Amino acid sequence: MSELLQNTIEMIRPPDEEAMGKARLRQDQLTKPRGSLGRLEELSVKIAGITGKITPRIEQKAIVTMAGDHGVVAEGISAYPQEVTAQMVYNFLRGGAAINVFARHIGARVVVVDMGVATNLELHPSLVSRKIALGTRNMTKEPAMSRDQALQAVVSGIEVVNDEIAKGLDIVGVGDMGIGNTTPSSAICAAVTGESVAKVTGKGVGISDEQLTLKVSVIKTALALNKPDPDDTIDVLSKVGGFEIGGIAGVILGAAAQRIPVVIDGFIAGAAALIATGLCPGVKDYLIAAHASAEAGHRVILNHLGLKPILDLEMRLGEGTGAALAISIVEAAVKTLAEMATFANAGISEKLD
Amino acid sequence: MSELLQNTIEMIRPPDEEAMGKARLRQDQLTKPRGSLGRLEELSVKIAGITGKITPRIEQKAIVTMAGDHGVVAEGISAYPQEVTAQMVYNFLRGGAAINVFARHIGARVVVVDMGVATNLELHPSLVSRKIALGTRNMTKEPAMSRDQALQAVVSGIEVVNDEIAKGLDIVGVGDMGIGNTTPSSAICAAVTGESVAKVTGKGVGISDEQLTLKVSVIKTALALNKPDPDDTIDVLSKVGGFEIGGIAGVILGAAAQRIPVVIDGFIAGAAALIATGLCPGVKDYLIAAHASAEAGHRVILNHLGLKPILDLEMRLGEGTGAALAISIVEAAVKTLAEMATFANAGISEKLD
Repeated sequence: MSELLQNTIEMIRPPDEEAMGKARLRQDQLTKPRGSLGRLEELSVKIAGITGKITPRIEQKAIVTMAGDHGVVAEGISAYPQEVTAQMVYNFLRGGAAINVFARHIGARVVVVDMGVATNLELHPSLVSRKIALGTRNMTKEPAMSRDQALQAVVSGIEVVNDEIAKGLDIVGVGDMGIGNTTPSSAICAAVTGESVAKVTGKGVGISDEQLTLKVSVIKTALALNKPDPDDTIDVLSKVGGFEIGGIAGVILGAAAQRIPVVIDGFIAGAAALIATGLCPGVKDYLIAAHASAEAGHRVILNHLGLKPILDLEMRLGEGTGAALAISIVEAAVKTLAEMATFANAGISEKLD
Repeated sequence: MSELLQNTIEMIRPPDEEAMGKARLRQDQLTKPRGSLGRLEELSVKIAGITGKITPRIEQKAIVTMAGDHGVVAEGISAYPQEVTAQMVYNFLRGGAAINVFARHIGARVVVVDMGVATNLELHPSLVSRKIALGTRNMTKEPAMSRDQALQAVVSGIEVVNDEIAKGLDIVGVGDMGIGNTTPSSAICAAVTGESVAKVTGKGVGISDEQLTLKVSVIKTALALNKPDPDDTIDVLSKVGGFEIGGIAGVILGAAAQRIPVVIDGFIAGAAALIATGLCPGVKDYLIAAHASAEAGHRVILNHLGLKPILDLEMRLGEGTGAALAISIVEAAVKTLAEMATFANAGISEKLD
């Protein structure tokens, strides 16, 4: 394992219980009935634990959107042609995609990363190139990538988030772009959680019933051929994963190492979280689930990670779109700690006994 | 019925089907798989129908927080002393309450209205005084207010929102402050929907099991004594309602008359929506349910209105806090129509056949 990855994992510490206790106490003193802000109170306490601050501030926000292509699309498991991955990367760079709209809405920057798009993309000042290969190989015929490439993907993710941390970062959302990438994500989900392929495989952004049957069979073939080891998520990533999935796992680990909360978008980012938590179970405490994706299998991932999503808007787009909207809710939650008056300083009567 | 109320109701028209059709078509041309933004797409189409614009913009936002007191608190149905209503109004004016934090977060102004607080409040440049009386009367002994006062409350709400529209308003959230006001809200809910008092009555912000039993019995007594007519929601409002509830109903009607979307906060704003839709069923099309309140009965109201909440964060605070967070989601939804690239202008391949 690379030194950066090893060091990053070793830096991940449990949340700050003292800060959490003090934040919880502060929530109880704010001018509202105790608990009346529901999950927002929990979220604010979680962020206090992650950051070690009783009144954390979320100012610098980034969405890291990682793109990659997948050899398995040759099996006909996607509703869109592979060229759309590259076309959408250009759309991100021009600011015309949903993630650009939502990132602007919440005041976040979008960091677009080429982890392995199957096209030699034109240079662009805003494109971070970490290309490992021109797409993964077809996992129904051979491993999607080598073990070295899998490690390289994760390390690249750590480096990408470290660069963002150097620029200033209080919270990061992770999202994906990659035609066909619900297929490796379902394969990872089945391999790591032990659930059946049928249960964790859905229609992605819109395949037919027939294609769904094919997709399930493709994933079963890939798992039977490659036999990923669920106790070694680098093995899982290399055999049935994707470059952008590995990159997102790296962003998660790198952010957690520096006590920065990570909002995971939907199903693909969730699969990446399974890879990351396989490498370091403690990373779970740094994760916030943005939304309940419409994709089958997402709930399985969230249950496995012990996370409850913030939003449920039947979204199934990816890109980090759910993460962006959820970050705004998290930001509102932590602002209560810093900005609300307390009963004592507002001269407000407390609850009757 | 007052002329302003009558005229306002007559101005409320069905949503613009043509704008909705065009917005739906535009959603299908934006660079994302059709339907992949889930409920955000529905919301954007709804706002197009309300405003009559295919690419509506939400820039000027207000939360109208209406405060009032309730004579029925003499029966011991609340966890907090009545003086807290006035104390919280001062907190709103100083900017220290949750609604101030969330309104600042989404870039909305807070309009604090005294509809009938049981204290003569000090003048403040930001306090809108529409005080009808120093709190309602105890509805277990007599009607909460006269029919004239009920009409005055609704008309005041219309006038308040008309003033805001004159300043510039693209969306309005409605919220409440009033110690004890889940009790009249449950009474309204039972009277209008016909559901049992037990089913629509909850613990508000935190009463005990014993107090809940008392609260149910208090509401039953009030309904048995006053016999509100469910087909005449001004009658319901006058007998078992509250001044802030009537005011919120007026804001809803006034906004709908001018084709401005109204985000209703939680249980109390929901009860106000029952009053408003009783006066004009067509107003439903202008309503957006902010969140699923933790309060029992809220789901009954949403089912009655045919609304599905945007958020479910176990909030039960009121003030308009849920409405503020939901407005930010609605804003993001409509921005997709105005700001996202289309497949054609981004040169992106469409779905495979």
